[in-house]
Amino acid sequence: MKIAILGAGAMGSIYGARLSTCNEVRLISRAEPSINTITLTKNGIDETFTPVITTDSSTFGVAELVIIFVKALSTEVALENNKSLIGPNTYVMTLQNGSGHEEVLSKFVENNKIIIGTTEDSGTVIKPGVVRHGGAGVTNIGMLDGIKDDILIRIQDCFNQVGFDVKIYDNIQQLIWNKLIINSSLSILTGLLQVKMGHIATDPYAWTIVEQLCKETIKVGTAMGLEFDEQAVYEKIRATALGTPEGIPSICVDLSKCAKTEVNTISGSVINAAKRYNIAVPTHELIVNLVRSMENRGNYKL
Amino acid sequence: MKIAILGAGAMGSIYGARLSTCNEVRLISRAEPSINTITLTKNGIDETFTPVITTDSSTFGVAELVIIFVKALSTEVALENNKSLIGPNTYVMTLQNGSGHEEVLSKFVENNKIIIGTTEDSGTVIKPGVVRHGGAGVTNIGMLDGIKDDILIRIQDCFNQVGFDVKIYDNIQQLIWNKLIINSSLSILTGLLQVKMGHIATDPYAWTIVEQLCKETIKVGTAMGLEFDEQAVYEKIRATALGTPEGIPSICVDLSKCAKTEVNTISGSVINAAKRYNIAVPTHELIVNLVRSMENRGNYKL
Repeated sequence: MKIAILGAGAMGSIYGARLSTCNEVRLISRAEPSINTITLTKNGIDETFTPVITTDSSTFGVAELVIIFVKALSTEVALENNKSLIGPNTYVMTLQNGSGHEEVLSKFVENNKIIIGTTEDSGTVIKPGVVRHGGAGVTNIGMLDGIKDDILIRIQDCFNQVGFDVKIYDNIQQLIWNKLIINSSLSILTGLLQVKMGHIATDPYAWTIVEQLCKETIKVGTAMGLEFDEQAVYEKIRATALGTPEGIPSICVDLSKCAKTEVNTISGSVINAAKRYNIAVPTHELIVNLVRSMENRGNYKL
Repeated sequence: MKIAILGAGAMGSIYGARLSTCNEVRLISRAEPSINTITLTKNGIDETFTPVITTDSSTFGVAELVIIFVKALSTEVALENNKSLIGPNTYVMTLQNGSGHEEVLSKFVENNKIIIGTTEDSGTVIKPGVVRHGGAGVTNIGMLDGIKDDILIRIQDCFNQVGFDVKIYDNIQQLIWNKLIINSSLSILTGLLQVKMGHIATDPYAWTIVEQLCKETIKVGTAMGLEFDEQAVYEKIRATALGTPEGIPSICVDLSKCAKTEVNTISGSVINAAKRYNIAVPTHELIVNLVRSMENRGNYKL
């Protein structure tokens, strides 16, 4: 396949490196790359790859598949800057954290060319060109519009050949929202309260807010045609928090540094969907204002 | 006058010491006092007083006036433990921070015996028996039920004689709520966001929440018969925050230490009043849950 990957961070590097072994790959970096190999290190074993890493996508022509691995806030700029990759038959795939990325993608391609999904792989850039490939897991994908498309099988074959584990879903949005409902309650609250995950499951006041947020999310998801078992959702959240009580979600780390968070693609995507269905989500709205205000604290932070 | 003061902290000591010079005063302390004099220090000048400080109120008989200066959370226990001070003609006065203290007081005396108010005096206990009398200002008082009562004039005469500056109000609740509307928005938000006051006036997301909280408070206050000029309220809050942008309200300090706050007598009193008038105050309710959850963070705090 002829694949362009936008974003040469940890995840872009992991997918770009592996896929380059038997596909025509361009790994598009925002800044001029200082390296021309990528070494993935996992459990003490290093593997080195030589994908083409470049800031210039214009010589690549139209790609079959464009994968987005930039930060959510940069998606629109990245697509705008690399428009030449997209032709009428190009599929664009997002495996970014959170949900609602399709709203940006749909400005550049038709909905029936959008592939959404999640990845359980994780990684950290150790230094330029060297990425620790933390966990490897399933790459879950599906068509945004839910209509069967052979592209999914082609991606599955192509990705599995180089060591990924791709699963195809008829209703990928359900899977994304199953994750979103946890992130938009548990993770966001750890950020606001500046606590480790265990607090959310053990403090009755935090838990009250978890339930309020989940109820609003379920209303919106249900309007979208998704299905939730409310009690099962609570059990999952409680088990997640108690499973790693010392866990600190990335939004919590970001807020401790007054850095920009991905709240837009977490709570923000619940709010955007709620607007489409004219559903009130006042708890999510208040929480987002609090998060944004925490991002902005600067020198006023205690 | 025969006056009992419950609570021998900074404020109880300031009022108890001064009033003891020409009244029959008992300063009731929770713990056995280690001292029998109180020195007030102000602008480098020390004055020493000898009020009777005791844990035992039973020998004092019925008081004409009981002044409450314990922490809000301790009001009910303090009154219960010192019930013998209260006879059918005893007035009980609260100058405690926040609002809604009358709900506890009315379990012990009729509403027409309850005096509520605020004090602009402030103090800090430096060591047992020595209190820095920070600022001196007006003591604002009025009857809870708003019905004229000569007791107010008697208190004014008696207090002014020893150096206080008492003002009497027909509608003291209005004055209390004018302060409450600021504390239940500006102060509470500094606590939640862990910021200095300037942030609240300069960050648009925080300001949105200020407006939401004030709108709810105004609805409740209006139902109570109070009057607010919404724009004037915002101007006052903005001026307060910008006047001391580095200011850190006590609830913000408390939350930074995961200590119990006085949220009950701030937001909590808006919520309690809202219940009586069947008015929805979802923003205050969510904020209170967040504050209580922050109090409880313990070892889970980042």
